Amino acid sequence: MMATGILYGVGTGPGDPELITRRAWRLIETTHVIAYPVPDTGDSFARAIASDAIVENAIEIPMVVPMRTGRAPAQSIYDTAARTIATHLDAGNDVVVLCEGDPLFYGSFMYLLARLKDSYDVEIVPGVTSLTACAAAHAHPLVARNDILTILPGPLDDIVLAEKIAAADAVAIMKIGRHMPRLKALLTRLGLEDRALYVSHASLGHQRHLRLEDAPDEAPYFSMILLYKGDDPWIS
Amino acid sequence: MMATGILYGVGTGPGDPELITRRAWRLIETTHVIAYPVPDTGDSFARAIASDAIVENAIEIPMVVPMRTGRAPAQSIYDTAARTIATHLDAGNDVVVLCEGDPLFYGSFMYLLARLKDSYDVEIVPGVTSLTACAAAHAHPLVARNDILTILPGPLDDIVLAEKIAAADAVAIMKIGRHMPRLKALLTRLGLEDRALYVSHASLGHQRHLRLEDAPDEAPYFSMILLYKGDDPWIS
Repeated sequence: MMATGILYGVGTGPGDPELITRRAWRLIETTHVIAYPVPDTGDSFARAIASDAIVENAIEIPMVVPMRTGRAPAQSIYDTAARTIATHLDAGNDVVVLCEGDPLFYGSFMYLLARLKDSYDVEIVPGVTSLTACAAAHAHPLVARNDILTILPGPLDDIVLAEKIAAADAVAIMKIGRHMPRLKALLTRLGLEDRALYVSHASLGHQRHLRLEDAPDEAPYFSMILLYKGDDPWIS
Repeated sequence: MMATGILYGVGTGPGDPELITRRAWRLIETTHVIAYPVPDTGDSFARAIASDAIVENAIEIPMVVPMRTGRAPAQSIYDTAARTIATHLDAGNDVVVLCEGDPLFYGSFMYLLARLKDSYDVEIVPGVTSLTACAAAHAHPLVARNDILTILPGPLDDIVLAEKIAAADAVAIMKIGRHMPRLKALLTRLGLEDRALYVSHASLGHQRHLRLEDAPDEAPYFSMILLYKGDDPWIS
């Protein structure tokens, strides 16, 4: 019986291809079936990050995921993608799924994993997340010593966010996009705006890193607010 | 006037040298002054991860940090290390400081950064953290959708831990070591032990990944408990 292929969930890191790990790079270079998410408008960010490693004759499986719609259509897309990927695995070919950042950190890879993990060998190659890439942009500690770090999606409502921010030493607010004006107003009400840092497009050429006070109200989806509430990390 | 060197804080990732990023690897290979922390008993983990990239004639600056003692002696060690590093930067040589995982995620690099950031150019190269490497070991989502992820150091007391665990969708407890029996008992009291996963030495050959219930009471410092409390991530 022919051995089935291995499913690799591969983190591409935050954006700079140089922040791909050696293992991820080599896997992408040597695997001939490559899947990745694509928004219904625009290009695949994961594919763009890894493009220099993808071999010319690779079979590509773009998974076109509609943005800002309900869960149902996206799920049928993962059903279809999982079937396509399974066909390649059954034929004995490994499949690499490219994942922005890390495959298991707020990623859509879990939807494929759920569909394929019981039938195939799976290996996850962790990647650099936008979380630490944003801290790197400011060269500011994300979290230190015995601090509590809480990661909050920006779409959560203000009451939840305020409560969680109060309870943490360090906070990262992700998935900002259109929530930026509300989030800025919230941090101002909490008296924390002067401690908050903003980053968009971390690690890319057009990265911006500013104090939140100086950041524009229009923020892309790939942006983050970092807030360090603990003792001044610069006091040693 | 001669240009001063650049200080690079370089994440080595969680342990497997293959999980070093391409940029970090290249910087280590091409930089002749390399600093890293060393515990007062045993070898430097950061140096071990990166050893194959360090050139033979590199000038090495081991920073011997006493474990489990007060802050004062460690701080004088960073003072001394910062002075040594500054001498090399002043001479126009770049210096790479190797950091396990990521330089700004619970690392000691911030103590050097605090001492040198105002006088020298600094670049941080983010790395794969143990956080996502532990999720990769279990091939289980760390955090999904609009979940709240809270990262808790194991040395915190039970009351604080219980409160923060209650308020999160996903939890990672780090720095476990001798706190393991207490943490297991706590999660059992909270009725969460059957949802918790354990990982030690993530990404290394001797990695162990078990359900927390099956994990030994003796845990190394480099171990973690992951807990996913949100909706079953496998339900799509």
